[in-house]
Amino acid sequence: MRSYDLIYKKRQGEKLSREEISFFIRGYVEGRIPDYQASAFLMAAFLKGLDDEETYYLTMEMLASGDSLDLGDLEGICVDKHSTGGVGDKTTLTLAPLLASLGLKVAKMSGRGLGHTGGTIDKLEAIPGFRTELSEEEFKGQVNRIGLSLISQTKNLVPADKLLYSLRDVTATVDHPSLIASSIMSKKLAAGSDYILLDVKVGSGAFLKTLDEAIHLARIMVSIGEMAGKKTRALITSMDQPLGYMVGNSLEIQEAMGILGDGGAEDLRELTLALAAQLLLMTGKSTDYKDAYKEAEAQINNGLALESFFEMVEAQGGKIKDMAVASFQEVIFVEEDCYLAGFDTQMVGEAAALLGAGRQTMEDEIDLTAGIYLPHKIGDKLSKGELLARLYTSRPGVFDDARKRLLEALSFSKDQPQKVELIRALVYKEGEEIKEVLWS
Amino acid sequence: MRSYDLIYKKRQGEKLSREEISFFIRGYVEGRIPDYQASAFLMAAFLKGLDDEETYYLTMEMLASGDSLDLGDLEGICVDKHSTGGVGDKTTLTLAPLLASLGLKVAKMSGRGLGHTGGTIDKLEAIPGFRTELSEEEFKGQVNRIGLSLISQTKNLVPADKLLYSLRDVTATVDHPSLIASSIMSKKLAAGSDYILLDVKVGSGAFLKTLDEAIHLARIMVSIGEMAGKKTRALITSMDQPLGYMVGNSLEIQEAMGILGDGGAEDLRELTLALAAQLLLMTGKSTDYKDAYKEAEAQINNGLALESFFEMVEAQGGKIKDMAVASFQEVIFVEEDCYLAGFDTQMVGEAAALLGAGRQTMEDEIDLTAGIYLPHKIGDKLSKGELLARLYTSRPGVFDDARKRLLEALSFSKDQPQKVELIRALVYKEGEEIKEVLWS
Repeated sequence: MRSYDLIYKKRQGEKLSREEISFFIRGYVEGRIPDYQASAFLMAAFLKGLDDEETYYLTMEMLASGDSLDLGDLEGICVDKHSTGGVGDKTTLTLAPLLASLGLKVAKMSGRGLGHTGGTIDKLEAIPGFRTELSEEEFKGQVNRIGLSLISQTKNLVPADKLLYSLRDVTATVDHPSLIASSIMSKKLAAGSDYILLDVKVGSGAFLKTLDEAIHLARIMVSIGEMAGKKTRALITSMDQPLGYMVGNSLEIQEAMGILGDGGAEDLRELTLALAAQLLLMTGKSTDYKDAYKEAEAQINNGLALESFFEMVEAQGGKIKDMAVASFQEVIFVEEDCYLAGFDTQMVGEAAALLGAGRQTMEDEIDLTAGIYLPHKIGDKLSKGELLARLYTSRPGVFDDARKRLLEALSFSKDQPQKVELIRALVYKEGEEIKEVLWS
Repeated sequence: MRSYDLIYKKRQGEKLSREEISFFIRGYVEGRIPDYQASAFLMAAFLKGLDDEETYYLTMEMLASGDSLDLGDLEGICVDKHSTGGVGDKTTLTLAPLLASLGLKVAKMSGRGLGHTGGTIDKLEAIPGFRTELSEEEFKGQVNRIGLSLISQTKNLVPADKLLYSLRDVTATVDHPSLIASSIMSKKLAAGSDYILLDVKVGSGAFLKTLDEAIHLARIMVSIGEMAGKKTRALITSMDQPLGYMVGNSLEIQEAMGILGDGGAEDLRELTLALAAQLLLMTGKSTDYKDAYKEAEAQINNGLALESFFEMVEAQGGKIKDMAVASFQEVIFVEEDCYLAGFDTQMVGEAAALLGAGRQTMEDEIDLTAGIYLPHKIGDKLSKGELLARLYTSRPGVFDDARKRLLEALSFSKDQPQKVELIRALVYKEGEEIKEVLWS
């Protein structure tokens, strides 16, 4: 086999076999195939496409490049959730304790934020003392004991993905569904859970802008997961506005505790419960969606989900009471009566990053106290003088740029606009077919 | 400007500006843009295409990367001819002296053979003492004095093409019409003639297999030449069988002299005259094709074309009388009465290479005496016991493989097959339009 012939074959739009994809990925990871051949191959794959089988082979080969977690020795049913990324998305922080309180096991690895999107590990680090790096033994021991643990990705998790992503990043081959799907799913499969629920974000704050694109990506990921023998589903959910009211690391920890406690933003609560209900159905713990949803709701109302959250924080050494608050705050008021018409949600994320809540490169330091409180949702009536937003930071001199960016991100109208549907579709496998149901 | 954005733009199928193409090519040649970005760009260009303007900009930027010959100080009209390569194509050797005898100036740079195709410089080196490297002063002086000189390409002729070609060669991006056209035309423009006649080969011994492909490539090249202010035409001619009777370096020198002397293969003579007639029309030396053809024919019949050939050989130090002959010969006879039905012409070239006449890599040595005599053309009646081919070499032990390959290349039939049309089409510019005329 020659790498040249595989580039040629894909350039001609022909299908590659499992052996051919394996040869190429292994050859690249092991340094036998040079960058310039890999980038030509990636561009050919980008423009000619990979079918479901090729994408599955690519995923499995990337998976084979590193270590996988074996969760087979854990007692109970291990479940995993993955969000494709957004602004204010702290669902892992609410969902994981809720699932643990429902008797499911959550042994989950998460990432950090980059650009306009946040990451669970950054959020957890806003809790002083919280250890995001545990040994495998500690990690599994904690999950066996209290039902959940959230840690950062281990070093040798899918090295092929790291290599390929670095190359894609500089050769304009990132945003292809099959390449994205194989990148995400190789990491999900390496993480070892038998049930994978994907939260595919769509809208102004997500990298997928249309429902069709989101469903397309979801179908590929569900197909990969199911081919690999994992029960896999995807919810397509809105990122047309920030999720919840808070954007920023320590702010989102506080909001997550609020949701598990006595209330909080309706959208975040609804998404948490919808995701939990899907996992109860997927694992066979429930057979009816409404029942499952109510069962999950009960665990929030009776305080057991919040208790799970505190158990995890304590087990991983975190001290909630020591959390820092921002040194500076600034408020923005509504200027005249109107309706909130829309968000450029990515820009909201950028405004938060300007306050210090995000990073442009993985080397940047972040201000864990920084962020934005946005109490209104699209369609809400706003009265003159009412609070529109509160900005938080511990860095001097950043308010002007952040305020400007935030105000650019918001649009208003005289007439009441339609509210945004949070949950847009479900993608799942039934029999031999990948199906989708549109929510309405 | 960022190289990433240009890869992205071409990936999306958008048109690049002259400045953008210049930025990319210059950046690559000067080492600022890495191989892996250039190969992704080339694959995107391969799959999304370059239009005539983009291809012209690419050509001009490659041209600008090196030295160009300025032939403006030569007396008379400088003309150039380029063949896209084939088997037995010694037309430069017959055409250049013929043109000189007609009063045109031929200051021509040629290349070497690779794979199954031959190269003019190798053929000339079969003449002992023939110098293919002259100083610019010697080169131009000789052209002014006797009307022609054939030399090998100078070192700094289009370095961008050398770099890009090396990368295309290992990333499956060679065989794209725009990339081929810009590679050929940048070298033709650097060579400095005002009139460029292209001989685009089509058929089993050419890299273009169909007439449509050949016309497509010819149109792009004529478009580039005309945009650059050069009078440019292309003849599309058959490479469905070797041109002439001889394949191999010293054999082709002998055959060329025969054509200019007292006869020889009809197809080679016809192509030589057709190319000469086109150049007489292009330069305005003649206004009627038939007249031009006859005028050229007269220069062969009166011996002046052959005289020009000998003048060139003498001027460049060659000694025809010292040419070596092959140490070994082997003949193949016709086994039963039949017709010659077809050639896999590439395989004929490979058989000649097995005898020593060609090279696989630019480092290989060749046997200048090696080659094949093939006295028959498609459609010819063959009688049992008649000579089918004669093989020449000075290397021991190569006949078996070469004979086997040659016999695989030939096909025979009981019924008389159609003869092959040598000249298939003419591509030229008239007014603002690139036109084609099919020969029939």
